[in-house]
This record gives sequence, structure tokens and C-alpha cells, in this order.
Amino acid sequence: MGNQLEQQFREYVKKMTNYREAIGVLAWDLRTGAPKKGVEQRSEVLGMLSSEVFRMHTSAEMKSYLLELREGKVWEQLDDVTKKTVAECEKVLKKLTNVPEKEYEQYVILTAKAESAWEEAKHNADFSAFRPYLEQIVDYNRKYVEWVGYEGNKYNALLDDYEPGLTVDIIDEVFGKLREEIVPLVKAVADSAYQPKTDFLFHRFPAAKQRDVSIEILKSMQYDFDAGRLDTTVHPFAIGLNPGDVRVTTKYDEHDFRSAVFGTIHEGGHALYEQNIDTKFVGTPLCTGTSMGIHESQSLFWENFVGRNKAFWEKHYDLLKQHSAGQFDGVDVDAFYRGINVAGPSFIRIEADEMTYSLHIILRYELEKALINGDLEVKDLPAAWNDKMEELLGIRPANDAEGVLQDVHWAGGSFGYFPSYALGYVYAAQLKNAMDKELSNFEQLLREGSLGPVKQWLTANVHQHGKSKQPLEILADVTGEGVNATHLIDYLKAKYREVYKLS
Amino acid sequence: MGNQLEQQFREYVKKMTNYREAIGVLAWDLRTGAPKKGVEQRSEVLGMLSSEVFRMHTSAEMKSYLLELREGKVWEQLDDVTKKTVAECEKVLKKLTNVPEKEYEQYVILTAKAESAWEEAKHNADFSAFRPYLEQIVDYNRKYVEWVGYEGNKYNALLDDYEPGLTVDIIDEVFGKLREEIVPLVKAVADSAYQPKTDFLFHRFPAAKQRDVSIEILKSMQYDFDAGRLDTTVHPFAIGLNPGDVRVTTKYDEHDFRSAVFGTIHEGGHALYEQNIDTKFVGTPLCTGTSMGIHESQSLFWENFVGRNKAFWEKHYDLLKQHSAGQFDGVDVDAFYRGINVAGPSFIRIEADEMTYSLHIILRYELEKALINGDLEVKDLPAAWNDKMEELLGIRPANDAEGVLQDVHWAGGSFGYFPSYALGYVYAAQLKNAMDKELSNFEQLLREGSLGPVKQWLTANVHQHGKSKQPLEILADVTGEGVNATHLIDYLKAKYREVYKLS
Repeated sequence: MGNQLEQQFREYVKKMTNYREAIGVLAWDLRTGAPKKGVEQRSEVLGMLSSEVFRMHTSAEMKSYLLELREGKVWEQLDDVTKKTVAECEKVLKKLTNVPEKEYEQYVILTAKAESAWEEAKHNADFSAFRPYLEQIVDYNRKYVEWVGYEGNKYNALLDDYEPGLTVDIIDEVFGKLREEIVPLVKAVADSAYQPKTDFLFHRFPAAKQRDVSIEILKSMQYDFDAGRLDTTVHPFAIGLNPGDVRVTTKYDEHDFRSAVFGTIHEGGHALYEQNIDTKFVGTPLCTGTSMGIHESQSLFWENFVGRNKAFWEKHYDLLKQHSAGQFDGVDVDAFYRGINVAGPSFIRIEADEMTYSLHIILRYELEKALINGDLEVKDLPAAWNDKMEELLGIRPANDAEGVLQDVHWAGGSFGYFPSYALGYVYAAQLKNAMDKELSNFEQLLREGSLGPVKQWLTANVHQHGKSKQPLEILADVTGEGVNATHLIDYLKAKYREVYKLS
Repeated sequence: MGNQLEQQFREYVKKMTNYREAIGVLAWDLRTGAPKKGVEQRSEVLGMLSSEVFRMHTSAEMKSYLLELREGKVWEQLDDVTKKTVAECEKVLKKLTNVPEKEYEQYVILTAKAESAWEEAKHNADFSAFRPYLEQIVDYNRKYVEWVGYEGNKYNALLDDYEPGLTVDIIDEVFGKLREEIVPLVKAVADSAYQPKTDFLFHRFPAAKQRDVSIEILKSMQYDFDAGRLDTTVHPFAIGLNPGDVRVTTKYDEHDFRSAVFGTIHEGGHALYEQNIDTKFVGTPLCTGTSMGIHESQSLFWENFVGRNKAFWEKHYDLLKQHSAGQFDGVDVDAFYRGINVAGPSFIRIEADEMTYSLHIILRYELEKALINGDLEVKDLPAAWNDKMEELLGIRPANDAEGVLQDVHWAGGSFGYFPSYALGYVYAAQLKNAMDKELSNFEQLLREGSLGPVKQWLTANVHQHGKSKQPLEILADVTGEGVNATHLIDYLKAKYREVYKLS
């Protein structure tokens, strides 16, 4: 970076990422045991730091950097990381300046109130108490898409916040295929004469022992404990503060070890992404995962393609058994494998299995799209939810708590987020397909517990790039394809036909 | 706060305290298990936030607030908290602007290097390797006292950073009395025919059990776990982030439970101070302890007057016994009490007992004073140290690692800090004397485990005021005295004559 202007800009951006790192530590702290009486004051500190980042994003100084750096001769000589940083800052600035400040401020207050209202409404299974808030939130989002602009479908403006490059056209096709193939698969599995035994899953497994297992599995995944730590929380998450400090949290259900074991593998997958971003991106907005969907592809790759694979347990079942109090006595690895892959229709998304999960997402996507385009009104949402649930999964919620009120996302104003979850499954299967062409011995590696090559392949193809490549760019470079549901469908069909002994 | 200027100033100051709180969380995090690979980048975040606070302290905006608020009519109408905040900000500004920026920057780099050099020098017991650094540090401090100014002795300028209001004249008198009375007491104790048994102290006491004991004792001290938490560190500390979040750390030596138990009580005493500052001071620089010495008086009050009191163990000995693996079988509470109060000359300050501790401090004070006034040169320091050690404690270090190189303070440039430790003992004894006039049944309260009234007395007389009262103001208001060594001397004499069965 010979250019003085470029250096100053990079310093400026580094300062913003430093603030974000401080915010990250404070947020992690709040969720891992910060004393409750300090929370109110801590929230103020967080608010102040966030305002500072917002201010720096939209300042006259930022605007003048972006203008001057785009100037022909200057631009040509910029480092590639700087160019992509400029583009990212321009994008954020455009979003932030297109939204009227007053409206945005009111919306922040609205969603804060809506989250409390939602919590109570969910507790009472009473949609009507939440409805007025949701109506205002939907209204805002209908205006928001006009402010920030879109091509084609209005919903594309929201998708862009979470999965840049993805459009309603692409998703309609992908989700359409999934729907077409998964709905009959779910039915076949439900109708199967063979159903896996699961009673052995629910014996008491002490939290401390689950923690020991979780740590061993993270190590075996090549998670670097010198660049991370494992803590306990109510809602597990992974957080990348910088590539040298990427933390995982989990929770321990003493009567269902799966929550911690698969939760840890899932968050560990997110963490491996953040630990292995090329350090040349440190101090820029490119030093993070490129999208929600690609991030989810990493967690799901590890959770499902590795963690729910029989070959993985051929290596790790002994570890689990040794830490348990005998609950797996007389359960062979095959029975264990079928037990942890039990699948079928259920009401709650976050408890759904690998096979049905994308149907829960498709339901939400279709409802969101209709709401934003004005084809559905909030008052009709509960009935629409229940109808779609029946259509996709063949079951109908008894009340709104196990239906339309189950997720916090809409209360928080996160429209456009849900599709990323299902896209993560689709991407993961595409990556697995590409990996198989290069690592011919995937299952053998799992059987040996040699997960290094798997992690290295993901680092080389996904992790290292951080946010310097867009989701579709990564897919194209690694798989030669666009978004393609076929690999996920093939995988699920093959797997569940085998687990459920279907012909 | 009707005045708009006053409100703006308070907002400005609140922003600074918010940054400090963020710095506090990051510092706590670094010391309680942050992964090592993230430390370098985290240090940069800390540096940036600290620079921001420094900038705000010395900004044109701050200067203009201070000028305008001092204006006659404006000043008269200010809230008392604002007035004291203005005075505190003026003091800091004066210090920061009197020091040449270049010299200060070089000094920060020097002390960082000096700490590494000190660590190695201590490891090799080789003062000569540390000497060039210490010479530069002493040089800087000799200049520093001229920059910031002083009345009377040059050393007063340094005292003012840690113990405002205290002077060499006061300390010479107080430490002189201590020296006169404690030196013969130490000799009498060493010569005593009776020596307490201590072998039972060193049996294995599992860390998890020590943690359970520590938590119970903190609760009994009225430490509020809804406004704090207990973690593990190498160098225990307490940190007040805001009064609703004051954290304690401790360490567990499985072959000497005293480290955790008395360490936790000590840090718990610091924490009680910070938890009980009046919330009207939140968001101002007054929301902390008023000085190092007064802070230490709180930790030492709890550690010694409560934690090393026989009456306290008449209540809590069973708790300790129940968590131990039988090491106290056949040891009655009297023998236990004598065992934990074993005392005598030793080389290392941080391992010293209550009786000899202040002699370790007097040694350092006399050497620092001589160095700053040019009466001693760094090259002559090791010999001077060893001579004083012999004079005060009757023992001579075999090498510099157990002598002049033992503490990090000088490498870090903290000249003027040491006296606060001994002043904390003196203040604690003065407070105890005052408390006894109001709570006539102190030992009975300990015997019952009713520590509420003790904590409430300290809150009413010390904690609540935060930094709104100077150390000497607190002493005068609570005890009607200045700094007075008599109470500490009387207490130590009475206690150790009893423990050692002297006539």
C-alpha cells in the first residue's frame, strides 16, 4: 500500500473493525454469564459503540475516501483487498443513507418492543397480542424495499442483506425442487414399517462428561483451542472476534446428549470458517463469512455430512461410550447411527431433523415473500401458516405457540434471513459433491478420525476467502455450478432410504 | 441538571466512562481465558479505546467545558456530582498536559520493554540485565515530578497519583512509628518458645471444593452474585465495570487452600466497595474507589479483621471442614486459628503475613524516596535493598530474584504505588477502631455469621461515596483522625502476643 490515501482509509476501516471486535467481546460476555444487574449499563455501552460504528460508516470522511479512491488512476493502483473493502463500504453506505434516519430509529425501538411483546404472546400462544407489532414491522419492510431498491421481485431487496446475489427466481426454482422431492420422501419415511429405536438416547448423561466429549470432538475437527474456547449458554452460538479468537458455546441437556454433541459440531463448523480466514483480511470488513448461507453450509457440513455419518461414529462411538454411564451398552454402532438419524414431521423448526428442516424454511420463505409483495396480510398469517404446515409436513399446529409464533426472527425485523438456512443445506451438499471428486476417501478419513484433509479442503475452497468472494462466486469456483438442489435431494433420498430400510 | 451545558458535559463524561467500561470487560476477558492467538489483535483494540479516552480527556471540547463550567454563575448552579466531576477532570487534564507527549510515548514503550527485561532478569536473578531499563525509568520519574510539580518533597508528586493528600511528612511519621514497634514485635515472635502447628494446612484440597467454599464465604460477606461472578486467574484481582457488575477472580493451590480462601476474601473486600458505590455516580469518574490505599483498606479489613479472626472461623470452620478431605480432623478451631496466623520474616512481599507486610513496604518506600530525590542511584539499589532487609526483618536475600527483582512495579514505572499497601493496613485498623464504637458486638456478629451490619457500616462510611471524597476526608469524617498508625500497632501487638502466647 504505497498510496497515503489508501493507508489512511485502511486505518479508518481498521478502527471500525476494532470497535466491532469490542462489541463482539461485550456481546459474548453478556451471553455467557454477565451478572444481570450490570446488563442495563452494559447495553448502553454497546449502544454507544454501535453508534460510533454507524457514524463512521456514514461520515463525511468515509464519503470522501470512497469518492477519492474510485478516481481512475488511484483506483488502478489499489491493493485488491482495498478495492473489495471500498466496494463493501459503498454497499453499506448506500443502504444506510437510503433509509430515512427517523424511520430507522423508530424501527429500532419498534423491534425492541416487539421482541418483548412476542415473548409474552408466544408464552400465551396468543397471536393477537403480537399482531399490531408485526403489522408495523411488515409495513416498514414494505417501505424498506422501496428505499433501497430492487430488480425483479421486491423480496430481492431483503435477500440481498443476507445472501447477496440470490434472487426470488433462483430460490423459487431451488425450493420448488426440494419441495417436490422431499415431501414424498417424508411421507415414505413416516409410512416405513421399520422405525429406528431411540429410547437409549434419553438416559442421564452428566453435563461435565458431555463437555469432555464436546472438547474431544472439537479437537478432532481441528478446531484450534489456542484460538478459541468453549462456554455454556442458553442459545448456543459461535462468534469470530478475530481469526485468533473464535469462540464456541453450547448447552447441555442431561437427558439428551444430542443437543450438546450435535450443537457443538454445528457451532464448531461455523468457528472453523472464522478461524481460517486469511489474515490479510484482518482489519477489514472482509474478515468474516461471506453470507449467512455460506456460513450455515459450513456448520451443516460438519453437523450432518460428518457428525451424522456412520463412518464418523465408527471412530468416535467409543469416546461417547466411555464418557456415558452405560446408556449405550448393547447398542451397536449401526443401531446408534439409525437412532441419531431418526426423522419425521414436527412443529418446531429448531428441533427439526435434516430431512424435514428445509420444508420448515420453505414455509417461512413463501409466507415472507407473500407478505412483502402485498399478497398476504398479517391478520391472515396464522391460518396461512397452519395451511402450509399441513401441505408440506402433513401436520397442523394446535396453537400459535407451536406455529406462527415460534421464531424470534420476525419480531426482530429479520425478513429475508430464513432462506439462508435452507440454502446452507443446499450449498453444503454441493460442496460435499465437489469434495468427493478430490478426496476420494471421505468416509475412510472419517473412519480413521483423520479430519485434517476435510478441514483443509474447506479452508482452501471456502474459509480462507472470507468475504472477499460472493456466495455465487464461491459456488461457481468450487463446484462449477450455480445453486443446485439436486445434490441435497440425492443425498437425503439415499441416506433416509438406507436409515429407514426403504426399498 | 437544568443547565444545558451541564447536561452536555455529563453526556461527554459518560461516554468516556462507557469506553472505560468496555476496556474493563476486554481486560477482564484477557485475564480469564481469552485464547492466546487473539491477544495481539485484542491489544490493538484496547490501545485504540485507551487512546480515545486519552483524546477525550485532553480535547478542545473538554477544555472548553471545564472553562465554561467554572464561570461564576454557572458554577454556583451546578449539581454537586458535576462539580466534583469537573475537579477530577481538571486534575487529570493538568497531569496529562504537563507531560511532554513525546517523552510520555517513549516512556510507554520503555516500560513495555522493561517488563520483558525484568521478567528475564528475575528468572536469571541478574539485576545487571534490568539495570539500564530501571535507570531510564528512574530518570523519567525524576523529570516527571518536575513537570507535574510538587510542594515539599519531590516524592509527593508521585504519591499524589495513588494517594492524593498524602505526603512524605505524613508517611515518614506513620511508617516511622510502625518500624519502631513492629521490628521488635517480629523479633519477639521469632524468638517465642511457642510456634503454631501448620502441617495440616498443606494437605490436598481439590480445587472444585475450594471454589464451593469461596462462593459460600463471598455470599456470607454479602457479595452480590447478581452483580458479579467468580472466575479463575493466575494473578487474582477484582474489577468494577459498573456497580451492577463487579467481578472477583481467585486461584486454587490444591496443596494450600489459604491462597484461594484468603485471596477470595481479599478480592471480595475490594468488590464490596465497588458494588456499593451510590448509583448517582454512575457515568462519572467518581464511580470508583477513591484511592489505592482506601481500596486496600477494604480488602484488608475483610481479609484480616474478619477472615483471620477466630470468631469468624467459629462460624465458618465447619464449612471448610465439610468441603475438605479430612485434613482438619483432630485440629480444633483454636489450633486452626493459630495455624492460619503463623507469622515471621520472609523474603517475598506477596507471601508475607499481616505482621511483617508493612515492613516490606517501608523498605520499598524508603528506597523509592531516595531514588527520586537523588540520594540513591540505581547501581547501588541491590545492596541498599539487602541492607534494609536485614535492618527491618533480620534476613538477607541470597540473590536478587528474592530481593530487589521480586516486584513488577518498578519495571512498569509505578513509583509511588507501594506506600498505598501499608496505608491500607493503617486505614483498615483505624476504620475497625471507629466501627467498634458503633458496633459493640463485632466478634459476636462474626461468631453468628451475621456480616450484614459490618458490610452496611462500611457502605455507609466508605463505599457509597466512591471517589467523591478524598482519602483524608473519609478518615476525618469516620474516625475524627488523620492517618494514625497506633490502631494497627495496638491490634498487631495484641493479636500476635496472643497467637504466639507471649507474656
